[in-house]
Amino acid sequence: MIRPAELIQRKRDGQELPADELGELILGYARGEVPDYQMAAFCMAVYFRGLSRPETFALTDAMIRSGETIDLGAALGRKVVDKHSTGGVGDKTSLAVGPIVAACGVPLGKMSGRGLGHTGGTLDKLESIPGYRTELSLDKYVAQVREVGVAIIGQTGDLVPADKLLYGLRDVTATVDQLSLIAASIMSKKLAAGAQAIVLDVKVGDGAFMKTLDDARELAETMIALGRDAGREVVCLLTDMDQPLGAAVGNALEVREALETVRGHGPADFTELVLDACGKLLALSDLGIDEAEGRRRAEAAVADGSAESAWRRWIEAQGGTADESALPSAPVVRGVVSTGGGYVTSLSAIGVGMAAVHLGAGRRTKDDDIDHAVGIVVHAKRGDRVEEGEPLAEVHARTDPAAAAASAEVLAAYELGPEPPAERPVLLEVLR
Amino acid sequence: MIRPAELIQRKRDGQELPADELGELILGYARGEVPDYQMAAFCMAVYFRGLSRPETFALTDAMIRSGETIDLGAALGRKVVDKHSTGGVGDKTSLAVGPIVAACGVPLGKMSGRGLGHTGGTLDKLESIPGYRTELSLDKYVAQVREVGVAIIGQTGDLVPADKLLYGLRDVTATVDQLSLIAASIMSKKLAAGAQAIVLDVKVGDGAFMKTLDDARELAETMIALGRDAGREVVCLLTDMDQPLGAAVGNALEVREALETVRGHGPADFTELVLDACGKLLALSDLGIDEAEGRRRAEAAVADGSAESAWRRWIEAQGGTADESALPSAPVVRGVVSTGGGYVTSLSAIGVGMAAVHLGAGRRTKDDDIDHAVGIVVHAKRGDRVEEGEPLAEVHARTDPAAAAASAEVLAAYELGPEPPAERPVLLEVLR
Repeated sequence: MIRPAELIQRKRDGQELPADELGELILGYARGEVPDYQMAAFCMAVYFRGLSRPETFALTDAMIRSGETIDLGAALGRKVVDKHSTGGVGDKTSLAVGPIVAACGVPLGKMSGRGLGHTGGTLDKLESIPGYRTELSLDKYVAQVREVGVAIIGQTGDLVPADKLLYGLRDVTATVDQLSLIAASIMSKKLAAGAQAIVLDVKVGDGAFMKTLDDARELAETMIALGRDAGREVVCLLTDMDQPLGAAVGNALEVREALETVRGHGPADFTELVLDACGKLLALSDLGIDEAEGRRRAEAAVADGSAESAWRRWIEAQGGTADESALPSAPVVRGVVSTGGGYVTSLSAIGVGMAAVHLGAGRRTKDDDIDHAVGIVVHAKRGDRVEEGEPLAEVHARTDPAAAAASAEVLAAYELGPEPPAERPVLLEVLR
Repeated sequence: MIRPAELIQRKRDGQELPADELGELILGYARGEVPDYQMAAFCMAVYFRGLSRPETFALTDAMIRSGETIDLGAALGRKVVDKHSTGGVGDKTSLAVGPIVAACGVPLGKMSGRGLGHTGGTLDKLESIPGYRTELSLDKYVAQVREVGVAIIGQTGDLVPADKLLYGLRDVTATVDQLSLIAASIMSKKLAAGAQAIVLDVKVGDGAFMKTLDDARELAETMIALGRDAGREVVCLLTDMDQPLGAAVGNALEVREALETVRGHGPADFTELVLDACGKLLALSDLGIDEAEGRRRAEAAVADGSAESAWRRWIEAQGGTADESALPSAPVVRGVVSTGGGYVTSLSAIGVGMAAVHLGAGRRTKDDDIDHAVGIVVHAKRGDRVEEGEPLAEVHARTDPAAAAASAEVLAAYELGPEPPAERPVLLEVLR
């Protein structure tokens, strides 16, 4: 029988907790025996003291044991891959990766979350597609991965219920941005959902949880170790989130851009990241090919239209209208015009992300509704040369005042200078 | 409208919170609008980041504003004094100080708390007296202070309800031992209860919250400033809690020792502290005398029996049986015998305190019942010379096995050496 107050105190005082006691704390919390207020104090103590690698393992393991798990590979009789991003501004990677990988003959099943604050959620983006159902039974989910090759649904309550509770609590107690808690939250869901190989995308920059490359590396290494410990193959990309990914920020706008990318007409940085991730996923799959060949096949699936066909099959299987003309669009579209000339030396991801939130594209609190139509499309990105009076971006808004406010915010997110900035690729590092 | 999660985050990040926002957080908590889990995370953030002096003021002020206040001076038409101890092992000071000061013609009204862990509570001690009522209406309380000169009751729910809530929460979230929270908790109750002059006794040592003289000084200075800011006179004693105060530890045993001290037959260290505190209280009163004269009068009240009469009037006014033969006694009394000879170089207060808790004299959790009869009487204290086979202490227990276990614990609390230790007086410092 653990005593929660004593465990809190030991963590507060910097002690390492034994795996069994930490596990019991988490499972007790999931069963409703450890109250929210003790878990909140515990999370804040963890915020200041951190968790050791063994503690992070124990936390992840207990979260998985709090609910059901799926063995997707066994259900399909073959190796299944998954990808996950830590979240950023304009990050619609999963939407494009899913159908491309499926078109190459590798099944991808993914459970996604909703967005909070400036980082959008894959589910929210998908819900801008009329008719798209994010809630499938586990049976239907498995059947769709088998028959269609791709399914993206919401996290079911049966998997990792402790994470759902804990994330909700962390969100309202200022304990979200702690590395071990983030790693355990992500990996418990990935491991419980049953993919044997996982490509992780850790975002680094002002629009991401991880502000520095060092922090991102530590998170990546922790998640790789958690995956390896559970017998999974994990590759981790560290990618730039100092500026938005691609051009579109906002739910329907991002779906449109993902589809354009699946068709081969996406923005350069986003296309590069999507193809790289696809190459790695295919190399991890049971196709028995390397990354270069994986990338070649992904490019071919985009070029020959099979990726777009997979997109259509996937969206329609989940009840959605695959035709992009069905996506909602905002009544007010307003250009953001440069007030000077020069090179874009920086374009703050958090600045653009918060402008989108203020337009209604994201949630300030968990209970906020989302306006799927609104958002921002950035035309000029870091390194681009712009002239005074040239359009930098486009704001899609519900009302004129909202458009005006967002335009000012987007303008403020741009910094221009006389010299082009040092090049910073979208893909910064790969860890395995 | 404050956003609690944002305030938690700012405190977590080391920012100073404006008084109005911090006040609104506390009042919102008292109204039930801010949930326990947010306040728990906030308290843990405060544990790591601390509170500035202005923040501590704002917290104290908000706690006072959460409930009613009493103007005891106005109700009695004269200056009223109060004393408070931060709690330790064997600390029955209030029980002796109350009737002595009253016998000298100065009214003392005091609201006390219950004990938790190794530090006993004045209320628990008083409840070992058959019939003693700790709950009086505010009217009856004021009337008794006026007519009898002394009343000691439990904290009423009408005064400082925020503290009651907050203390209960801190107790189960490992956030009790934080200096600013302790200062605000003590001073909000003292200020709301209306005494114009307060003598504070901050315990320092292994049996106290404050382990070092530096921490104790900081707590004392904070409380003095809080009192002064509210227009009260405050004197603060820093006193030794590296060994138990006096000889008796345990509720009825401590009541007995307090009465013996009021009669002039108490242990030297406890008698010294009681007379010193009485002198300071009388000097702060409206008698217009200095501390030396205050101490002389306190000694006289003890010597001439008027203090004992005041004790009897006080206990009987609150429904108790003043005769000590009515106090409960434990069925098993067992001597603790020295296994070696030498000087007592240390006698751990926490060691003796925990032995008493294990006997049943204190609570491990808030809901534990207390056995008022059991406890420990230490005969040998720091600096005393003892011989092998000589009794060091006496254990008063409910059962033989409990007595045996406690004897071993008490024995382990003693350290003997060939040389007498450096002298350490009970009264270490006085701050004003």
